[in-house]
Amino acid sequence: MKKNRIPNKIYLAENEIPKTWLNIKAFMKEKPDPMLAPSTYKPCTYKDLEPVFCKELIKQELNGTDKEIEIPEGIIEFYKMYRPSPLIRAYSLEKALKTPAEIYYKYEGNNTSGSHKLNSAVAQVYYAKEEGLTSLTTETGAGQWGTALSMACAFYGMELDIFMVKISSEQKPYRKAVMETYGARVTPSPSDKTEIGRKILKDNPTTGGSLGCAISEALEVSFSKDKCKYVLGSVLDYVILHQSIIGQECKAALDKYGIAPDIIIGCAGGGSNLGGLIAPFMADKLEGKNNIRFIAVEPASCPSLTHGRYAYDFGDTGKMTPLMRMYTLGSNFIPSPNHAGGLRYHGMSPIISKLYHDGYIDAVSVEQLKVFKTAEMFAKTEGILPAPESAHAICIAVDEAIKCIETGEKKKILFGLTGNGYFDLSAYIDYNNKTMTDYVPTEADLQNGFNSILDIPHNK
Amino acid sequence: MKKNRIPNKIYLAENEIPKTWLNIKAFMKEKPDPMLAPSTYKPCTYKDLEPVFCKELIKQELNGTDKEIEIPEGIIEFYKMYRPSPLIRAYSLEKALKTPAEIYYKYEGNNTSGSHKLNSAVAQVYYAKEEGLTSLTTETGAGQWGTALSMACAFYGMELDIFMVKISSEQKPYRKAVMETYGARVTPSPSDKTEIGRKILKDNPTTGGSLGCAISEALEVSFSKDKCKYVLGSVLDYVILHQSIIGQECKAALDKYGIAPDIIIGCAGGGSNLGGLIAPFMADKLEGKNNIRFIAVEPASCPSLTHGRYAYDFGDTGKMTPLMRMYTLGSNFIPSPNHAGGLRYHGMSPIISKLYHDGYIDAVSVEQLKVFKTAEMFAKTEGILPAPESAHAICIAVDEAIKCIETGEKKKILFGLTGNGYFDLSAYIDYNNKTMTDYVPTEADLQNGFNSILDIPHNK
Repeated sequence: MKKNRIPNKIYLAENEIPKTWLNIKAFMKEKPDPMLAPSTYKPCTYKDLEPVFCKELIKQELNGTDKEIEIPEGIIEFYKMYRPSPLIRAYSLEKALKTPAEIYYKYEGNNTSGSHKLNSAVAQVYYAKEEGLTSLTTETGAGQWGTALSMACAFYGMELDIFMVKISSEQKPYRKAVMETYGARVTPSPSDKTEIGRKILKDNPTTGGSLGCAISEALEVSFSKDKCKYVLGSVLDYVILHQSIIGQECKAALDKYGIAPDIIIGCAGGGSNLGGLIAPFMADKLEGKNNIRFIAVEPASCPSLTHGRYAYDFGDTGKMTPLMRMYTLGSNFIPSPNHAGGLRYHGMSPIISKLYHDGYIDAVSVEQLKVFKTAEMFAKTEGILPAPESAHAICIAVDEAIKCIETGEKKKILFGLTGNGYFDLSAYIDYNNKTMTDYVPTEADLQNGFNSILDIPHNK
Repeated sequence: MKKNRIPNKIYLAENEIPKTWLNIKAFMKEKPDPMLAPSTYKPCTYKDLEPVFCKELIKQELNGTDKEIEIPEGIIEFYKMYRPSPLIRAYSLEKALKTPAEIYYKYEGNNTSGSHKLNSAVAQVYYAKEEGLTSLTTETGAGQWGTALSMACAFYGMELDIFMVKISSEQKPYRKAVMETYGARVTPSPSDKTEIGRKILKDNPTTGGSLGCAISEALEVSFSKDKCKYVLGSVLDYVILHQSIIGQECKAALDKYGIAPDIIIGCAGGGSNLGGLIAPFMADKLEGKNNIRFIAVEPASCPSLTHGRYAYDFGDTGKMTPLMRMYTLGSNFIPSPNHAGGLRYHGMSPIISKLYHDGYIDAVSVEQLKVFKTAEMFAKTEGILPAPESAHAICIAVDEAIKCIETGEKKKILFGLTGNGYFDLSAYIDYNNKTMTDYVPTEADLQNGFNSILDIPHNK
């Protein structure tokens, strides 16, 4: 069905929320290499993962065959509280840029957690509750994941311990306050609450922490408690699966108006938003049904795809997680503390890594002053203050739209606006005060990270 | 048209955004008493108001006859960037309360300014631009109005000076940062930039300021500059007019599902949200077409309707504005600095005041610990962290829903959720840390405010 005028915001009806998640792995002829158990370096079985993750989530993690996985009714009920999210035509931005391109963005920031992270948080807490667990642990960096998980835990009545990267908890006291309002316990990481935290603090007393450290602490606590497991907000295949709701809604909305995107752009930290946004479009591409260009955008200060190695690596600093074959800067890599824009994980989703490795996705990195400059311009034209993370994607969407001015092409550009920047104001203050600087890791920084990658099979 | 299942969120289509604002005054048989010029105490003419306000806005302010006023296409274009706003059925809240009542709320927080204030900001800046002005001044308290106005000014390319109540600017540094990101100059008030500011500081060097002070400073600056006028985000009739977009969308959404509300509840500071929310329903009530109960909810610490006097008073501390006949605590009244929940204006919209005086609206006041307790519960069940202002309305909606448990009535309760609480986290931190207290003004506090009210005709 093609209609004439495309509205500013395309909303699906509630009964158009997808009933299944789309499992991108099932469409890949060459699958990502399997997770390896940290004790044996052999592919993880269900049993290996059971002490760490929720049962249903492990099944999803290991499922490489079912193209669609049913979303339980209970999760859809929660989704209905804040979804479908709008697909927005950036008329004002197009006008400001004077581009012939059509620019669209899927906006995931209209919920209190402020980002797309809620899509997987709801699912993970729902399954944990079904399994009979009473508490969960997790880590959070910028705080979007922690907020999303506290909301879901409050809703389902589940206790929650969050280890928050120390530098972020200092930069974003209000993030901590939201999570606490939703009833979570928030501990800046590294902390003296865990063995690994104490070790890290001893080695490096002034460290601002990293996601890798915080994951280790959260894992350690989950092992020490009954009916408690650890959950993670990105990287893993099951998280990408849950986030496919973004791409599926997006495709349904575009189809309503007969819009076929030429380029799809997503920011990439652990890869969950990008993986979710592109899921149905990539599935079609893998089946030869389209020729869309996919672009992953990462910060120049934490460039896992553009400067990392495709190797088996741990997900955390304490080397407690299974090993994943992914683009990685090494689990010891810690981005410069002056980096304000989120997306600070050392590795990248194995699915995204594999697709990038096989040439299905392009990747670029952007420096943060450009990110904030674009964010400011976007806020003034489109009226939404973007999260710095999301603004990475806006940068490249704008670059592509400007190229269209030169070529005269009316390309259809879609990007993911993963969240709002209401809790990132300390970064915006730095930008406004011109105290923000760019940062690119030196060869020595990179080498230091690479030194923490083990040399095990499949490592290239 | 009646459909079976009412969705969680009722969205209108973009082409269902009302094309006209609804002028509630035109439906009132007894009109509010006219504004008086501060120099003569005679009713204000267009000419009296011209030095202060934008021309088109004065016309709207003085228009007591046209029931509908056309919304310019340029304003509708901006509205389309963030409207229609959703009407939400509070299924989770109903379930948590175990009430037979149906609870609905119109949510105005899904835009970067975080509240309904944007509805009037856009209109005011649009008209200022049309008039050939190049800059504007205003005041802001909690910061929602200032943020909304900076967004509109950035979009239309207009300079903006904001005087922000000092205590709020200290409690909410991020609010200041958003406004600055949108290019506004923000000055904590009272300041040494103006004569009135210096006088207030001399008399009371440690004052946290008030909206009344900030209005005086903004007015003084607007008088001193060419092509510059002052704009105000509440209280005035034209602001209520612009906010009628809320009620009209709300009514259209309810009509789609054949829902006739029994009770409509809004928080009331200056009265703009309440006036806008109830506009079309009140118009019907004034014409005898319904018997809806309207409830204004105000903070116990700034209780203009429930404890104020219905009298002619100034809008500002410096006694520079026209006089309005309204419920007022006196322009010298300053709410306790421990009051965290916004809604801190000494007066109340003359339209709302008149409707209240004539018995068309009820009013109640709520203490802030109850407000935050309800806000926390609402956040956990409905997934939206409310602005403390909005949570005043939630309190009474919950009270009414609980009454329905006792009586078994299936009342349809509608309230305005005017904004989100993302910039109010310092207040939530106080609440979480149990450092927040209740406050009710003493007789002496009230008397001190009343002493600043002049004794002029119509004063009762």
